[in-house]
Amino acid sequence: MEKNSVSKATLGRLPHYLRFLRELPKGTDYVSSTTVARELGLGEVQVRKDLNAVCGKGKPKIGYKVFELIESLETFLGYSSMNSAVLVGAGRLGKALLEYDEFEHYGVKIAAAFDCNKQPVKFNNHEILPIDELEQFCKNRCVQIGIITVGEGSAQEVCDRMVESGITAIWNFAPCKLSVPQGVLVRHENLALSLAHLNNTLKNQIG
Amino acid sequence: MEKNSVSKATLGRLPHYLRFLRELPKGTDYVSSTTVARELGLGEVQVRKDLNAVCGKGKPKIGYKVFELIESLETFLGYSSMNSAVLVGAGRLGKALLEYDEFEHYGVKIAAAFDCNKQPVKFNNHEILPIDELEQFCKNRCVQIGIITVGEGSAQEVCDRMVESGITAIWNFAPCKLSVPQGVLVRHENLALSLAHLNNTLKNQIG
Repeated sequence: MEKNSVSKATLGRLPHYLRFLRELPKGTDYVSSTTVARELGLGEVQVRKDLNAVCGKGKPKIGYKVFELIESLETFLGYSSMNSAVLVGAGRLGKALLEYDEFEHYGVKIAAAFDCNKQPVKFNNHEILPIDELEQFCKNRCVQIGIITVGEGSAQEVCDRMVESGITAIWNFAPCKLSVPQGVLVRHENLALSLAHLNNTLKNQIG
Repeated sequence: MEKNSVSKATLGRLPHYLRFLRELPKGTDYVSSTTVARELGLGEVQVRKDLNAVCGKGKPKIGYKVFELIESLETFLGYSSMNSAVLVGAGRLGKALLEYDEFEHYGVKIAAAFDCNKQPVKFNNHEILPIDELEQFCKNRCVQIGIITVGEGSAQEVCDRMVESGITAIWNFAPCKLSVPQGVLVRHENLALSLAHLNNTLKNQIG
């Protein structure tokens, strides 16, 4: 399977395309980018670019085979090969993420959460496991993604344990830099930044 | 005061510059972009670009006046004119945001949270007020920023009430589009997207 990396903006639109396609009347064989664009209120050029990135060009004047397009989108979004993630830090933010059901629409499932409790604790449909079980859990399940929602003070330690557990991609909510060996991806999530940017835009509009 | 809009990436670096400058030894009159870049592990061109956007060019071979640079950064980040925000939806995510103390480093303070409780409820150092008090609260304090952390089902209703209360910039965590009158800014925060993008990068590295 050859796959291109797409922008975050494109990635954000893919589940919308998928939902739209799945809701087409039965027996719809082809769909054009014009139709998709109109129905979803998007630009036609953008839709064509997005869809081409995922499943190649449609047929001129006919469009895309609906069945193939759905399959390509599902594969691209990882529906057929859901990736597991673990989360460390089951405070308010960690629990909010555990409850957030959008992740699965993008092919990622939070398989377990960990915290410093000595015994497993139930939380809704999830279980919060003792941090000492992290390594075994990740190795048994080949977990590759780790989410850090602990405070600044313990983030590096958690990061090190994740790396030791075989995790190769880290999504970090703690407001600090992390040192990782080469080959480990880190994405910092600075929630304040989105609000700051909105505030900044607002001030510029007024000023 | 003339001010330019800067990118989210630049905005994210400004508090780091400010912290560094404030910690310079007393009596340091000038600082060069070279020094700032070296100490913070950033590229020199980038640092110069960032600082120029906020406070104009430094003197060739001497650099920036530390005092002026600090003042410009503080003004730019809104420390001298903290903007108030209100948050509607005091569930787990809303409470996590209330506890997140990074916002104030970017000139925004969450002044109050609202939910469907009939009486004010204490939460740590915050108060969760009945939603019926939203309009009065915002109008009394000229609040311009609203944060939506309710579910998809009530997001549009909350958005409408915010707009009626004079709010002109909305940060929306609900996974749905919002209709707003012209002139009202909306930023959608799709947390899943960051994770999806990380997942996608990971798959491309391996695949």
